[in-house]
Amino acid sequence: MPLWNSRFRKPLNYEVLKFTSSIEIDKRLYNDDIDGSIAHVRMLIKKKIISHSDGKAIQRGLERIRKEIASGKLSINWRNEDIHTLIEERLVRLIGERGKRLHAARSRNDQVALDERLYLRKEIQETVKRINALQLTLLSQAESHKTTVVPGYTHLQRAQPILFAHHLLAYISMFERDVERLRDCGKRNNYSPLGAAAFAGTSLSIDRKMTARVLGFSGIVENSIDAVSDRDVLIEFIGACAITMMHLSRLSEEMVLWCSQEFGFAQLDDAYATGSSLMPNKKNPDIPELIRGKTGRVYGSLMGLLTVMKALPLAYNRDMQEDKIHLFEAVETTKDSLRLATLMMKHTTFRSDRFEKQLKGDFALATDLAEYLVRRGVPFRSAHSALGNLVALCNARRCLLHELSLVDFKKASPSFEEDVFLLLYPGASVKGKSSEGSTSPEEVEKALRQWKKRLR
Amino acid sequence: MPLWNSRFRKPLNYEVLKFTSSIEIDKRLYNDDIDGSIAHVRMLIKKKIISHSDGKAIQRGLERIRKEIASGKLSINWRNEDIHTLIEERLVRLIGERGKRLHAARSRNDQVALDERLYLRKEIQETVKRINALQLTLLSQAESHKTTVVPGYTHLQRAQPILFAHHLLAYISMFERDVERLRDCGKRNNYSPLGAAAFAGTSLSIDRKMTARVLGFSGIVENSIDAVSDRDVLIEFIGACAITMMHLSRLSEEMVLWCSQEFGFAQLDDAYATGSSLMPNKKNPDIPELIRGKTGRVYGSLMGLLTVMKALPLAYNRDMQEDKIHLFEAVETTKDSLRLATLMMKHTTFRSDRFEKQLKGDFALATDLAEYLVRRGVPFRSAHSALGNLVALCNARRCLLHELSLVDFKKASPSFEEDVFLLLYPGASVKGKSSEGSTSPEEVEKALRQWKKRLR
Amino acid sequence: MPLWNSRFRKPLNYEVLKFTSSIEIDKRLYNDDIDGSIAHVRMLIKKKIISHSDGKAIQRGLERIRKEIASGKLSINWRNEDIHTLIEERLVRLIGERGKRLHAARSRNDQVALDERLYLRKEIQETVKRINALQLTLLSQAESHKTTVVPGYTHLQRAQPILFAHHLLAYISMFERDVERLRDCGKRNNYSPLGAAAFAGTSLSIDRKMTARVLGFSGIVENSIDAVSDRDVLIEFIGACAITMMHLSRLSEEMVLWCSQEFGFAQLDDAYATGSSLMPNKKNPDIPELIRGKTGRVYGSLMGLLTVMKALPLAYNRDMQEDKIHLFEAVETTKDSLRLATLMMKHTTFRSDRFEKQLKGDFALATDLAEYLVRRGVPFRSAHSALGNLVALCNARRCLLHELSLVDFKKASPSFEEDVFLLLYPGASVKGKSSEGSTSPEEVEKALRQWKKRLR
Amino acid sequence: MPLWNSRFRKPLNYEVLKFTSSIEIDKRLYNDDIDGSIAHVRMLIKKKIISHSDGKAIQRGLERIRKEIASGKLSINWRNEDIHTLIEERLVRLIGERGKRLHAARSRNDQVALDERLYLRKEIQETVKRINALQLTLLSQAESHKTTVVPGYTHLQRAQPILFAHHLLAYISMFERDVERLRDCGKRNNYSPLGAAAFAGTSLSIDRKMTARVLGFSGIVENSIDAVSDRDVLIEFIGACAITMMHLSRLSEEMVLWCSQEFGFAQLDDAYATGSSLMPNKKNPDIPELIRGKTGRVYGSLMGLLTVMKALPLAYNRDMQEDKIHLFEAVETTKDSLRLATLMMKHTTFRSDRFEKQLKGDFALATDLAEYLVRRGVPFRSAHSALGNLVALCNARRCLLHELSLVDFKKASPSFEEDVFLLLYPGASVKGKSSEGSTSPEEVEKALRQWKKRLR
Repeated sequence: MPLWNSRFRKPLNYEVLKFTSSIEIDKRLYNDDIDGSIAHVRMLIKKKIISHSDGKAIQRGLERIRKEIASGKLSINWRNEDIHTLIEERLVRLIGERGKRLHAARSRNDQVALDERLYLRKEIQETVKRINALQLTLLSQAESHKTTVVPGYTHLQRAQPILFAHHLLAYISMFERDVERLRDCGKRNNYSPLGAAAFAGTSLSIDRKMTARVLGFSGIVENSIDAVSDRDVLIEFIGACAITMMHLSRLSEEMVLWCSQEFGFAQLDDAYATGSSLMPNKKNPDIPELIRGKTGRVYGSLMGLLTVMKALPLAYNRDMQEDKIHLFEAVETTKDSLRLATLMMKHTTFRSDRFEKQLKGDFALATDLAEYLVRRGVPFRSAHSALGNLVALCNARRCLLHELSLVDFKKASPSFEEDVFLLLYPGASVKGKSSEGSTSPEEVEKALRQWKKRLR
Repeated sequence: MPLWNSRFRKPLNYEVLKFTSSIEIDKRLYNDDIDGSIAHVRMLIKKKIISHSDGKAIQRGLERIRKEIASGKLSINWRNEDIHTLIEERLVRLIGERGKRLHAARSRNDQVALDERLYLRKEIQETVKRINALQLTLLSQAESHKTTVVPGYTHLQRAQPILFAHHLLAYISMFERDVERLRDCGKRNNYSPLGAAAFAGTSLSIDRKMTARVLGFSGIVENSIDAVSDRDVLIEFIGACAITMMHLSRLSEEMVLWCSQEFGFAQLDDAYATGSSLMPNKKNPDIPELIRGKTGRVYGSLMGLLTVMKALPLAYNRDMQEDKIHLFEAVETTKDSLRLATLMMKHTTFRSDRFEKQLKGDFALATDLAEYLVRRGVPFRSAHSALGNLVALCNARRCLLHELSLVDFKKASPSFEEDVFLLLYPGASVKGKSSEGSTSPEEVEKALRQWKKRLR
Repeated sequence: MPLWNSRFRKPLNYEVLKFTSSIEIDKRLYNDDIDGSIAHVRMLIKKKIISHSDGKAIQRGLERIRKEIASGKLSINWRNEDIHTLIEERLVRLIGERGKRLHAARSRNDQVALDERLYLRKEIQETVKRINALQLTLLSQAESHKTTVVPGYTHLQRAQPILFAHHLLAYISMFERDVERLRDCGKRNNYSPLGAAAFAGTSLSIDRKMTARVLGFSGIVENSIDAVSDRDVLIEFIGACAITMMHLSRLSEEMVLWCSQEFGFAQLDDAYATGSSLMPNKKNPDIPELIRGKTGRVYGSLMGLLTVMKALPLAYNRDMQEDKIHLFEAVETTKDSLRLATLMMKHTTFRSDRFEKQLKGDFALATDLAEYLVRRGVPFRSAHSALGNLVALCNARRCLLHELSLVDFKKASPSFEEDVFLLLYPGASVKGKSSEGSTSPEEVEKALRQWKKRLR
Repeated sequence: MPLWNSRFRKPLNYEVLKFTSSIEIDKRLYNDDIDGSIAHVRMLIKKKIISHSDGKAIQRGLERIRKEIASGKLSINWRNEDIHTLIEERLVRLIGERGKRLHAARSRNDQVALDERLYLRKEIQETVKRINALQLTLLSQAESHKTTVVPGYTHLQRAQPILFAHHLLAYISMFERDVERLRDCGKRNNYSPLGAAAFAGTSLSIDRKMTARVLGFSGIVENSIDAVSDRDVLIEFIGACAITMMHLSRLSEEMVLWCSQEFGFAQLDDAYATGSSLMPNKKNPDIPELIRGKTGRVYGSLMGLLTVMKALPLAYNRDMQEDKIHLFEAVETTKDSLRLATLMMKHTTFRSDRFEKQLKGDFALATDLAEYLVRRGVPFRSAHSALGNLVALCNARRCLLHELSLVDFKKASPSFEEDVFLLLYPGASVKGKSSEGSTSPEEVEKALRQWKKRLR
């Protein structure tokens, strides 16, 4: 029997109850719901809205229900409408009339808004923890590859040699911004909507700040209408997850490339790859593929909740029940993907010898030669042009840069000298870099040190 | 133990198996999977790739597994990787070595593509059926309201009087296009990918056309790579669902408006509305609100699958496992919403007397007066201007059009005559319409007749 | 001065006019708008709603305006509100009072719906034409590569050898479904909304079927409210474009991979690639990258228009003015991307010798060996397992399949015989395929013939 | 002639140039581009990479180009590829060889990342300013309506009486979180990518911190690969805009409702509404409708850029050129919508007398009566039930609450006393509220004071 039934002359139609029931989804809020109810009861006692003994009975009842749900004793099905109803009804069954006092000065509107904020607070912390674990794994691989030279790519074309550690450090930076975004969102999330009641507040003499304090919030969501009718913080959170998934999809794309026979740079541990039901030869990088694919879920959740909230008049509308499926989907997908990305990066071997030799004399060194000319006073655009001509010359001769003669170099620009040949090694290229945050060994070493300090 | 394990030296990591396992989602394909396997076996027998007796044993085994799953006897959990593996492994356990012959000339790649197409075929039919049921309910309400005059709105401003039946008929037309879209999608879906194997075809002498025929397909997806690597038909289907949800969200929005005290036009049956946990007075139109909110799910699924498929190289990639969550979400949400919209429209009372009197002399009749002038030779733009002035005059005098005098009318345009007053009734406005498909009683009657014939 | 101004006591605020003006966007509909107006006038004459001479003057005026706009003589700026207003106002300026008769029995609501359908009809034809051009280019490359053996990939791992022609043919099939989708959409689009007026129809004795006929429509959008208040066909079209872009993004991704030094399979003509402002060595595959990136625009447009239409009550709402930006964006992006993909595929050289030798003895042949065992009576799952062990053996020995001895093979399965060595060539693998639609030379040849007939 | 042309043997194809050219879009960055170049030159001088006199010539040249572009003297068309090329080429034309020195130690990759961050910094400030203006307008309307009692709605059903000021204050709170989100994004944006060069850093001895300082950044984007290859901050910004548009769409929806004849609560000034081309009577709330519709653009842009960035390998890819269209679309749409929402709220009259009388005895007072019972010791759930029965009784008698007798009340609950009749006025309801942030006059007054202080 729903909580609200007295003014209705007929029971709710069976199919409607099933359609409108949210308990299969919101049941995962049960702990938060009970935490919120206990804080509410403590306040009701303090403000003498209910008696001390009734309040204590309610608290005990709630704790018992918590155990019943955790242990699976209290069966949950869609007939229960939602987790709030389930718990309140169970409470009345357990402790009788006294249980009917719990919902004073409260509506499911502020109750669910509260539950979501309690839930989100924990999940933000957990997500941050998982990002940190991934960063540490990336850092550890970077440590192992601080002398591994690989081609850096733009447009998936070999562009300039870099240290592989430098490449991995780029991801650590990206994920760090993800952490900041989540923390900023957590800051905005950390205000209590409890006590807004349906949306107008209440005539009972409650103390909203007390419940906020008890539940560890920074304060209350001031305006009672705002408190129950907005979901912007959830959208902000899913948006932050979408960006994290975008970052993970890029790392995954690279892992898929690196595992290909053509790139031949990464090798997944056998315990972290799967085979084919038909082709006995296959060893597939399923983890990065699935993470990349799951990006679609979080993008979809973001679009889903934005759609739900579009053009809803204030205050609460039932449409907003649809916020949770999108929220939970984003939370679970992002957390799982972060965990698996961490495992994947930990259990992959990168071939440190794969590229270095190949890069000798490679066109990827052309930028260094152009900058060599700039240091000798050639305007950059002219230096660029000289190098372009040298590359074209090599193409015509089907040779590499180190196979040219000094005469060839001088024809392209008279500023070239014998020492140009010293630059035709990828190691020299990397070492030659000097700018802050560049791929030079010193800068990479510095970055490794800083991240080690920051992350541990 | 996965099907593909022999080349691996370590078992798959537990967390990886859990992450990559799809069975919690794809288990709903079990019937389709078994149908497909049986067709495959019949073909393998016919083509003498397996013996008659082995084939029969496999068929019997599969039928038994079907019953085991249906009855819940065969427990399913994420360790089973996917529904195909579960069934094949169970088969081997049931009938021994002979079961190992089933997967000849087949890959999970073509198998899952087949299952999805079998599933989608049924679901398209079911969705069409539900749209038809909604159309019939709308038609029945339209029949009951073929003389009910209501304001038609543009910009949510009262614009011109219409018959409420005409308004409902607009939705029947929209939903009819949804049916057509689904049918077109069904047509494209109805080709069999089976026999494409992993993506290259097979060296075994199979007969793809036979399995296609047995399974009721129009033909085969010709190119074997295309057969396993595209999901465009699924996206097309979700796109069609998104449009249907868009249509439902509009009907829902109107229902919410009509149920408001301000519009006061629609009254939901008590068994089809819910109350508030705090406010004892509330009777809320949850059904249309939830349908409107669930629009977000289907929009999200569409964006989700489009994201998954973006920029995937051929042929199969594990990302594509993520197609099913989006597909199933769209199927279930759309079907449920259609069903509930049907119940909602059936169990709503529309107050046929709500608006008619109010519309006497209303500005919503101005267009008719302008057209009256056009019939008397006034250029339309001048007639429009004359009426604009009359409306402004009424605003200044705070009166309605029928409270003006003929002198007032003539001052705005000398072409007005005494008979203008006959037009100042909403019923007259509606009856005055003459164009095809207009809101005139004749046209509405004609449309009702045609739809009755077409839908029943 | 807006067309609707007479009832207002103040001119529209400057910023509001600028914000609400759509002419910068809808000006591209001018030709369709004039076509529609001319059909409307011809009908008004026929039905004697306006005189023959007035009608003729209007037609001549409209044709003159068409030329003025085409030649840039009639300047257009945001003060003109929209293209319909611009043309009607210009008409009155050109031919005086008679011009004011044009808008009889018409609203901008049905007018813009008409313009969009006329525009979409042309654009669907043009898009189909461009898809066909791309298919022909793919076909021509396929013709040139019908003996080029390349590795087919799943999970971006080499899986089985295929003919490159077969790979290209997969895209031709995908694009063919895109054509069908566009045609189905075109069929639904081809109904005339003209004569629905604002949404209720009109009291003037118009002939909607005549204008529909004159403008080449299959019929009229029956219900007048539906005619002006839905935009489902536009969404369907953008959805079809999104799928086409998805397909193009996949082809583009592959081109980017093939152009990489690692894959080294494709070489863009110098006139179809660009360089770097800093790195003189770069030759970048910008075309496929940009096409892949532009996928975001069409996905965004689809989500944009779905959002606009969500939960709008009937009939017309000003929100719907926002349909055009999304429509035009999708049309232009898709058409441009198709054209450039065609150029790209035409001006790329694929190295037919790149892979074949490398594939000798490659694990990608394992499936053929497993099927060899099946033909000798081994259950497939056991054969798969035998091959998995052979691959593991090779991995341990760091050798390829053709470097194993018959003894090795027999240890894995006693059914292996000397003739297994004949299968260790990629060419043999391809030739060995026999199923319909497989990568065997005969099947590929057949497909090429069929497409040649179908596309030319 | 592109900047990068020397290694190419053919000029770029005309259609390719047109397709890849971004100048029609990125030209709006010209000021930022020149600011960035000037800072770069100052640093090159300081670090002696170019001479003082060359540097000065470049600076003067750049300032002249700035004026040429501002005044429209320097014509821009798609042949110029992009704004960076246009400016560099023009510079060389103006000052000769010296201009060729500008691009030393810089790539268009870090240049465009810099331009975007400079642009975004300004636009975030401007957007915040516009939100503040809207908040002030809302505050001013709230001041005028601090005694206006209106029904508060949930599910669009009248739920409880509230002060209209309280309703408007809810929006001020929402928009304040939007401001915070933008500021957090601005904080993350405010790091300089300049000096990352193509992605690997440079061998020239530049000073990245100097350019960062000169340009007002908080620091540098440390990792050079990260600096040029991520666009997360742009996505975060568009995400924040999407939430702001969501909020605006809700306010707009309410305005559309309030302007309807049924709600009859809001009246737009004639200068801020438009009419109909056909229906002379119409006065349409186009501003809120268009804002609501434009929500689709920003949602679309968000999905667009997320799609672009999905699964891109590092570092720069040409796909990323597509970031700007989505960014600019979001910036312009959001800014315009905020401005127009401000005008709309300023130029609307709300009828303070519309609802108060109607609410006497209304069911919307039921919650107050239930809380009255709670204060008398009735458990809330029983009180709720008592009120539900009273509402049902009224429904049966077709009367309101104040038309019941004390006997009726007592039958529902013996705890009712004569003083219950004092609560049957909406004013009493509002005054009776006591919780923090509720709709009570004291709380609303307090909120008004706080916002006045905070916003002014």
